Amino acid sequence: MNTFGRFFRVTTFGESHGPAIGAVVDGCPAGMPLSEADIQPLLDRRKPGGPLSSPRAEADAVEILSGVFEGRTTGTPIALLIRNRDVRSGDYDALRDLFRPGHADYTYLQRYGLRDHRGGGRSSGRETAARVAAGAVAMAVLGGFGVAVSGSVLSVHGISDPERFDDEVRAAQARGDSVGGIVEVRASGVPAGLGSPVFGKLDAAIAGAMMGIGAVKGVEIGEGFGAADLYGSENNDAMDRTGFLSNHAGGVLGGISTGQEILVRVAVKPTPSIALPQRTVDTSGAEREISIGGRHDPCIAFRLVPVAEAMLSLVLVDALLEQKAYGRGMSLE
Amino acid sequence: MNTFGRFFRVTTFGESHGPAIGAVVDGCPAGMPLSEADIQPLLDRRKPGGPLSSPRAEADAVEILSGVFEGRTTGTPIALLIRNRDVRSGDYDALRDLFRPGHADYTYLQRYGLRDHRGGGRSSGRETAARVAAGAVAMAVLGGFGVAVSGSVLSVHGISDPERFDDEVRAAQARGDSVGGIVEVRASGVPAGLGSPVFGKLDAAIAGAMMGIGAVKGVEIGEGFGAADLYGSENNDAMDRTGFLSNHAGGVLGGISTGQEILVRVAVKPTPSIALPQRTVDTSGAEREISIGGRHDPCIAFRLVPVAEAMLSLVLVDALLEQKAYGRGMSLE
Amino acid sequence: MNTFGRFFRVTTFGESHGPAIGAVVDGCPAGMPLSEADIQPLLDRRKPGGPLSSPRAEADAVEILSGVFEGRTTGTPIALLIRNRDVRSGDYDALRDLFRPGHADYTYLQRYGLRDHRGGGRSSGRETAARVAAGAVAMAVLGGFGVAVSGSVLSVHGISDPERFDDEVRAAQARGDSVGGIVEVRASGVPAGLGSPVFGKLDAAIAGAMMGIGAVKGVEIGEGFGAADLYGSENNDAMDRTGFLSNHAGGVLGGISTGQEILVRVAVKPTPSIALPQRTVDTSGAEREISIGGRHDPCIAFRLVPVAEAMLSLVLVDALLEQKAYGRGMSLE
Amino acid sequence: MNTFGRFFRVTTFGESHGPAIGAVVDGCPAGMPLSEADIQPLLDRRKPGGPLSSPRAEADAVEILSGVFEGRTTGTPIALLIRNRDVRSGDYDALRDLFRPGHADYTYLQRYGLRDHRGGGRSSGRETAARVAAGAVAMAVLGGFGVAVSGSVLSVHGISDPERFDDEVRAAQARGDSVGGIVEVRASGVPAGLGSPVFGKLDAAIAGAMMGIGAVKGVEIGEGFGAADLYGSENNDAMDRTGFLSNHAGGVLGGISTGQEILVRVAVKPTPSIALPQRTVDTSGAEREISIGGRHDPCIAFRLVPVAEAMLSLVLVDALLEQKAYGRGMSLE
Repeated sequence: MNTFGRFFRVTTFGESHGPAIGAVVDGCPAGMPLSEADIQPLLDRRKPGGPLSSPRAEADAVEILSGVFEGRTTGTPIALLIRNRDVRSGDYDALRDLFRPGHADYTYLQRYGLRDHRGGGRSSGRETAARVAAGAVAMAVLGGFGVAVSGSVLSVHGISDPERFDDEVRAAQARGDSVGGIVEVRASGVPAGLGSPVFGKLDAAIAGAMMGIGAVKGVEIGEGFGAADLYGSENNDAMDRTGFLSNHAGGVLGGISTGQEILVRVAVKPTPSIALPQRTVDTSGAEREISIGGRHDPCIAFRLVPVAEAMLSLVLVDALLEQKAYGRGMSLE
Repeated sequence: MNTFGRFFRVTTFGESHGPAIGAVVDGCPAGMPLSEADIQPLLDRRKPGGPLSSPRAEADAVEILSGVFEGRTTGTPIALLIRNRDVRSGDYDALRDLFRPGHADYTYLQRYGLRDHRGGGRSSGRETAARVAAGAVAMAVLGGFGVAVSGSVLSVHGISDPERFDDEVRAAQARGDSVGGIVEVRASGVPAGLGSPVFGKLDAAIAGAMMGIGAVKGVEIGEGFGAADLYGSENNDAMDRTGFLSNHAGGVLGGISTGQEILVRVAVKPTPSIALPQRTVDTSGAEREISIGGRHDPCIAFRLVPVAEAMLSLVLVDALLEQKAYGRGMSLE
Repeated sequence: MNTFGRFFRVTTFGESHGPAIGAVVDGCPAGMPLSEADIQPLLDRRKPGGPLSSPRAEADAVEILSGVFEGRTTGTPIALLIRNRDVRSGDYDALRDLFRPGHADYTYLQRYGLRDHRGGGRSSGRETAARVAAGAVAMAVLGGFGVAVSGSVLSVHGISDPERFDDEVRAAQARGDSVGGIVEVRASGVPAGLGSPVFGKLDAAIAGAMMGIGAVKGVEIGEGFGAADLYGSENNDAMDRTGFLSNHAGGVLGGISTGQEILVRVAVKPTPSIALPQRTVDTSGAEREISIGGRHDPCIAFRLVPVAEAMLSLVLVDALLEQKAYGRGMSLE
Repeated sequence: MNTFGRFFRVTTFGESHGPAIGAVVDGCPAGMPLSEADIQPLLDRRKPGGPLSSPRAEADAVEILSGVFEGRTTGTPIALLIRNRDVRSGDYDALRDLFRPGHADYTYLQRYGLRDHRGGGRSSGRETAARVAAGAVAMAVLGGFGVAVSGSVLSVHGISDPERFDDEVRAAQARGDSVGGIVEVRASGVPAGLGSPVFGKLDAAIAGAMMGIGAVKGVEIGEGFGAADLYGSENNDAMDRTGFLSNHAGGVLGGISTGQEILVRVAVKPTPSIALPQRTVDTSGAEREISIGGRHDPCIAFRLVPVAEAMLSLVLVDALLEQKAYGRGMSLE
């Protein structure tokens, strides 16, 4: 439930306002150079504090607890620890018994019978710091295979001109509201042949990984939903001796990578925490009005970029290791 | 790789033109009435032979080989067997060394170093009959919990008026082309509290299940990609004492079911097998032109409906059994 | 629950008196020659009908349903089917409501709330035919890596002279009784480096595999229980430039193979089905006396040999594929 | 590889001389009271420092990093951290390039291509502290179900009189040698019906769990190896209206618990670290003599008792949660 991957396995733990969050990475190849310096820059990209993000001031300093000896991975589990520092749980006292619309408050209570309300507990976006830390290890592995992953915000509230993103977000924030957006992630250098039909397809793994990020409500590969409106003659990727002549498929055919760029887009819903008053109920069922203060990003798409990159990296490393197991027939070499 | 689910586990096998396809369902609760009569109607809905579908004439008769005793499940694996009958492998001889655009021919060869070219082998849509058979068992379980799953085609080639679907598909077929579409699947009666953060989220499982169906290129839950263009004040689902006042979330918050209807839409690409000539290469790298005859659906969205229903059913049964394990605290009752 | 292995995954199905038993092998490397002729001889070794075994006359003819194309594995699931033929369920009518001592009748009923009493249903030793069939595929893979697995009966009822085995078993049978024995299995050619600490240790996997065979009550590796009585100076395997000077460890140190022969011994309990009268109860709790007729092996150790070989083979292939994934660092070659 | 269990999943990390060791427990039921005070006493039982054990002075103070809120489990992962304090890595400098007989030095190097030689790195018995910590959480769950687990040393170097254990161990230690022993673990209060045939059998899980403890070379259930020397009429457990009349089976029939006491015995090899000189080689293949100083237990069986209890507890909780998922048919209650 809190473990991702079959070959490169990541287990995350931690709540927003608990002592710490972290991840255990199991299955990393031995002998790879790794230190905190490979992980910290990725965490810094994700961490709160930018002009369009929550002012929570977390250093997000990562400590490697195991699995690295004299600067190299040993093949044993790599435990990554990030202490929570700037915890102001008092901000959440008023929310203790309220279900915030668009949040997991109601569903966690249904699921577990109790919940850690402080900052969303386990459902907080803060959990993604652990994914980014683990993703950084995955990216280091991918680098050794010549694979690079990068993402960007494609649109905000339907606007696709990056120069207008800032205005759009600030305008919503000024009204006590928030906006959604679309994030694209690409992977280049992916060899052909990754992915295992029929329930281990590469695109299925990507879709599950992306939809598992909080706030993501849609995932598409290549042409995605656009493909539903095309003719087969338009959507098929023809080949000549140089290879594929187009990439409507987004780099995956039959659940297996084609060797082309992997193209993924995800739909990010508007941040549910807004200052505008909303109708809700409390845990006793009484109707209440809620206005959410605290420290929140008015558009989560920006900080979601490194998380989406991390998740795609985890999927690709998993597929690479799987291919090592199965891909070269009857030899241990 | 060919097993789906953690608690209700389905392993499928079989190629389009091999002796048989089938599924082994492991983890079905004991004591549930089950016979071939519960499975066959679902297979009949999926099977080829309709006016807009491939003329391959398969009876798709299912045989239960195990796991049922005196009309009830025993808790042991339920093996389901469907023999292939109307196999015309000769139709595919000309395609033996060609990579069909939009198909998995190239990627399977990259993955495995060889491939069964007859009818697409394992990558054939025929594999989905095994999923539908297993899904029928899942639906029987769901019925016992009061959960119902149903799907429909929302649009074909961008057209959302069902009365025009037939014309649109036939027109494309007449030109030797094919069209895509959008399929919606809904589940009602789903209790709140299903799904396990952070890597076992219900929506993540649904997204992976759907994207793992051949020809699917996008998945969205609730508002989906539309949520990216909304304000938080529009997209949040407020509550009053009667419950949620809207369902933009599509029945899942924080990866856990809300108790509302589960709403999923998937984008289906146009059938890649088309009669129109296309550029491709053969396994030696020589450039070739290809025109695909054989028996193919000009719009696969219609036959994908029961497959999408089956996959959603499998995800939901898995989540129900998981909730039985974790959801009621410290008691075996 | 009915799937074994992580990389080379075997799912078995079927009851003693149902229509068929079988296995689905998922994760077999592609391109390996395979036909029924590679599997049938192993099944023939296990099958009933020998002088010291049950007279049930099963041909145990195996059919490959998928995963093989033109004589080679394709990397897709290999489904193996064995029809049950000589089913005399009527023999078991008298046992329908009785708990046979030493059998799983009582526990299956406790577990599932109902049971297929005919021939033991799923708990029958007949299920092991599916393991042997899958194990034959594993042995074919192992052969490609230069690994060979073989087993034998070490002792029967405490007697270790093979010339006396037959007399001992017949004497017990003549009294309506049965005897136990010890089986040894060895694997040669196993490369050093297989197995994954700390919960994927090779010896742990072997122990689980062996104890999971019906009638096995103990497992030991190398010196096994004898090591408890030794000094460290006796039990340690010293090394010189030629390698290890002894093999008290049985080929595994720290859960990883040493490159020496793998040595495993298992304790097999006496067949619980005996003609001698025994006290038991029926499903209503009434006390009854039971004398078991039917067709049973008076010493199951002999027919357990190919099953133990199969299970060890499955463990070793799993470990080999795992080592392919992790063992050679940062390269797909 | 470093995760144990399917329903109650424990992932451990850490090396003997790294910054910390720990465990992440995933799948613990929500709402259970838990604090460090439930875990620390178990760790104290295992920790070094007793008269017959290593003088390494570790406080083994455990910190709960997540998964507990206001004194109760929340259903989210419980991360447990134990810092290493008394690390004297310099003691191991002389062993950097030597393969200690009976240790995993050689096999880790074969497996991973490099190794953390300090104190055995990941292969150190220190890793078991993380198992004991996780096992303490499992025991808390078991307590809620009325299940109790306890173990003891049955024999040391073949001597079964506890009054002579101390003399035997000290005598060996005085000669620079070490001794093995046999440990028994029992679980009472286990309900009938736990365990899942055919590859999820309770006894198979127990055997794998026990053999996965370092230094364990054999596992037996109930009569164990003794059953091989019995007649069926002796080994079968008859029943009357009060239940089973004996427990030769050790509480498991057909892989499912009978409701009787679970009886497990494990063979523990003599500690491989001994002061007596031994022949070995270094990583360059040169022959060397080795005499191992440092801090080592002359008989590891004593400290293995809480580890074996922990592992049995983990297996039983896993089986209990599994039974909750499958055991009560078609209801979420």
